[in-house]
Amino acid sequence: MAKVTARTASGFNEYSPSNQIEFNRLMDIIRGTYEKYGFSPLDTPVLELSEVLLAKGGGETEQQIYRFVHGRNDLTMRYDLTVPLARYVAEHESELVFPFRRYQIGKVYRAERAQAGRFREFYQCDIDVIGSTSPVIDAEFPAIINEIFSQFNFGEFTIRINDRRVLNGFFEGIGLAASSREVLRIIDKMEKITHDELVTELRAAGLSDQQIESVLHFTAIEGSNDEVIAQLRALEASEQLSEGITKLEGLIAALRVMEVPESRFKIDLKIARGLDYYTGTVYETVLNDYPEVGSVCSGGRYDDLASYYTNTSLPGVGISIGLSRLFYKLREAGVINPVSQSPAQVVVMPIEQAQISSSAAIATSLRKAGISTMLYTERDKLNKKMRYADRMGFTYVVLVGEKELQSQSVSIRNMKTAISETVAIAELTQHIAL
Amino acid sequence: MAKVTARTASGFNEYSPSNQIEFNRLMDIIRGTYEKYGFSPLDTPVLELSEVLLAKGGGETEQQIYRFVHGRNDLTMRYDLTVPLARYVAEHESELVFPFRRYQIGKVYRAERAQAGRFREFYQCDIDVIGSTSPVIDAEFPAIINEIFSQFNFGEFTIRINDRRVLNGFFEGIGLAASSREVLRIIDKMEKITHDELVTELRAAGLSDQQIESVLHFTAIEGSNDEVIAQLRALEASEQLSEGITKLEGLIAALRVMEVPESRFKIDLKIARGLDYYTGTVYETVLNDYPEVGSVCSGGRYDDLASYYTNTSLPGVGISIGLSRLFYKLREAGVINPVSQSPAQVVVMPIEQAQISSSAAIATSLRKAGISTMLYTERDKLNKKMRYADRMGFTYVVLVGEKELQSQSVSIRNMKTAISETVAIAELTQHIAL
Repeated sequence: MAKVTARTASGFNEYSPSNQIEFNRLMDIIRGTYEKYGFSPLDTPVLELSEVLLAKGGGETEQQIYRFVHGRNDLTMRYDLTVPLARYVAEHESELVFPFRRYQIGKVYRAERAQAGRFREFYQCDIDVIGSTSPVIDAEFPAIINEIFSQFNFGEFTIRINDRRVLNGFFEGIGLAASSREVLRIIDKMEKITHDELVTELRAAGLSDQQIESVLHFTAIEGSNDEVIAQLRALEASEQLSEGITKLEGLIAALRVMEVPESRFKIDLKIARGLDYYTGTVYETVLNDYPEVGSVCSGGRYDDLASYYTNTSLPGVGISIGLSRLFYKLREAGVINPVSQSPAQVVVMPIEQAQISSSAAIATSLRKAGISTMLYTERDKLNKKMRYADRMGFTYVVLVGEKELQSQSVSIRNMKTAISETVAIAELTQHIAL
Repeated sequence: MAKVTARTASGFNEYSPSNQIEFNRLMDIIRGTYEKYGFSPLDTPVLELSEVLLAKGGGETEQQIYRFVHGRNDLTMRYDLTVPLARYVAEHESELVFPFRRYQIGKVYRAERAQAGRFREFYQCDIDVIGSTSPVIDAEFPAIINEIFSQFNFGEFTIRINDRRVLNGFFEGIGLAASSREVLRIIDKMEKITHDELVTELRAAGLSDQQIESVLHFTAIEGSNDEVIAQLRALEASEQLSEGITKLEGLIAALRVMEVPESRFKIDLKIARGLDYYTGTVYETVLNDYPEVGSVCSGGRYDDLASYYTNTSLPGVGISIGLSRLFYKLREAGVINPVSQSPAQVVVMPIEQAQISSSAAIATSLRKAGISTMLYTERDKLNKKMRYADRMGFTYVVLVGEKELQSQSVSIRNMKTAISETVAIAELTQHIAL
């Protein structure tokens, strides 16, 4: 029979077992932390009606989607988890309890040009709180980021924080309210262009020499969080600027109450996070040792989640971790090096097939004690069995042999230390659990 | 602005937070048990190349799929997790360690006519072992089913077991080898038709009176597992029948070693599980109290997983739990009644907004102790806050008030018992953890 070449479509990724185990471990840390802060799970469909999912429109989005007609339905695969959240909240407005805290961890689809580290199917891990304007909630997101990335153990990290009201208020104060979008766009990329290019662009945007000087002074503000706040207070005031500074101050104070280490959050006035969506606090997170990865977790506060579906104003704040991209980048950088191909710590192996039944009984007792255990079932030579155990990355190999069984014992080998011991079957569970 | 009605496409399901929490709890039980038996996670793409995914062909399948062309790609959404497994194993044959044990829990897509309890997007929870013919592995699946459904706590259940070699061997023995497919098809539905209809159908299939009598005798064999084995041994022998009986006997013996309660597994000679795929052991599982739900977990042994992609013979055995359907049916039956809308056990509430900072500090210490905690941030009246706590289904409400704070205490209310106590902040974590 002619065979079809087994392969996946370009841009669609899947992991080897060892990588998948490590990926799941990271995803469990994210999920566990989101739940520890009281966020409820949501799992919306991957396919939605195009009319609903694309209600917002936008040319760029429409080109990057998987959209097709099936029967009477015009369907689109979700390209983020924010639009489905907006749809869900608008649809269930009358049943939901607000503030509504939800997390969603799921795959999204973008028909982008496939390239290294850019996937057409990838995971997003989102949390949002909808229906609250409380500034204390804004502080919970950096606290969550801190807890997740501490557990990730990828070295130190910095959560950069800004407030769009500070940016807009500053622009207002120097007479730039009307062109603030254009100036924001330039500031957003200032880390990627030279000083001269920056000045040229600001001048092209119509700024006077004095306004340019003010912008350069503003974006150069640095120091500890308290020092930045003090320097902001010294700027010419606008009502919006004062409000923004007060919000930032409140956020910093709440982060201290929540015991987020001071070294891990930093006001950075150059952070804008796009032009249209965010209206208050904005966040992004960089790994200090891997700045080339870029922001690994970002988000912010917005005024109106679901205006395409409902007249109800739904303010919210949220963050997203792009786990697929982060995982790819950190594997490239050699930070993630998974070894174990099995979630089992232990493999139980009969030395000869005559001991398969005793081996099954021993595996059963280990599992009953909550120890993840694989039973080796094949009629192979012992050295092949040991090679298998080594390749799979088990911590312990329990060898069940005729001689040891006569004294109700087994041999157990610690694969990390290469030390073998004879242990009574009755004490095996305790021996491994320790 | 004109609004778009927020809605999902017909046949696409999503849960309320409380149902999603319960659904995830069940999914975690499945995943945890699969991992405890040493199965590795796999997460294949939802979208595959149509040429690859549909290599097997089959008219019925092709009508029930979501298939579309995007750019140069002809793509199909996966309609099960077995074909992607076959593709994965064939693609990575040279890298994988065999026997390859994998589990995959994920959504699959079928463009079926939408109806109650039948979804177009639903979860399957699959495990398979590829590359082993060891009969001990066949016993691990009922052991896993036993462990999962014991934890589910939906009452007693029965794992029905049969072996296709017993069926085929029996047919061979009475001279029906050539028409065994047709007879199997009739037996497969015998629980749904009358005795007379059964006889008529068997006669139409060309069976003699004596053959019909043999079939009726065979399918009427009942009793304990040992009694069924004994009655099978008494039938006229064929080589295949003897082999099948020996396999069944070995399976039963292994299940006893693995401590699966005898009341929960039962040889049932009427189980065939379809015509083409399975070649050895077959399983299905029914809930004793909800037989109308049908089989909640089924599977079996097959000879050749991936013949469309590779010449390598890849025998395997596996089972699948259709969790979305099971969840739907048991909610309908009133067995699943989730109450909590939050994964947090505890909500911390300031009585007045002046205590929000102290409340945040207390929530932080609870979270540091691993207790899932929500911080209530809204400026509402106390009775509105308590209504919220009640609706959300928290176990504990920690009320942070000015007076109690003066003595380093808080008030804690157990929402199940409606008992309130004053507890020192220093002892709060311990109080809740107990």
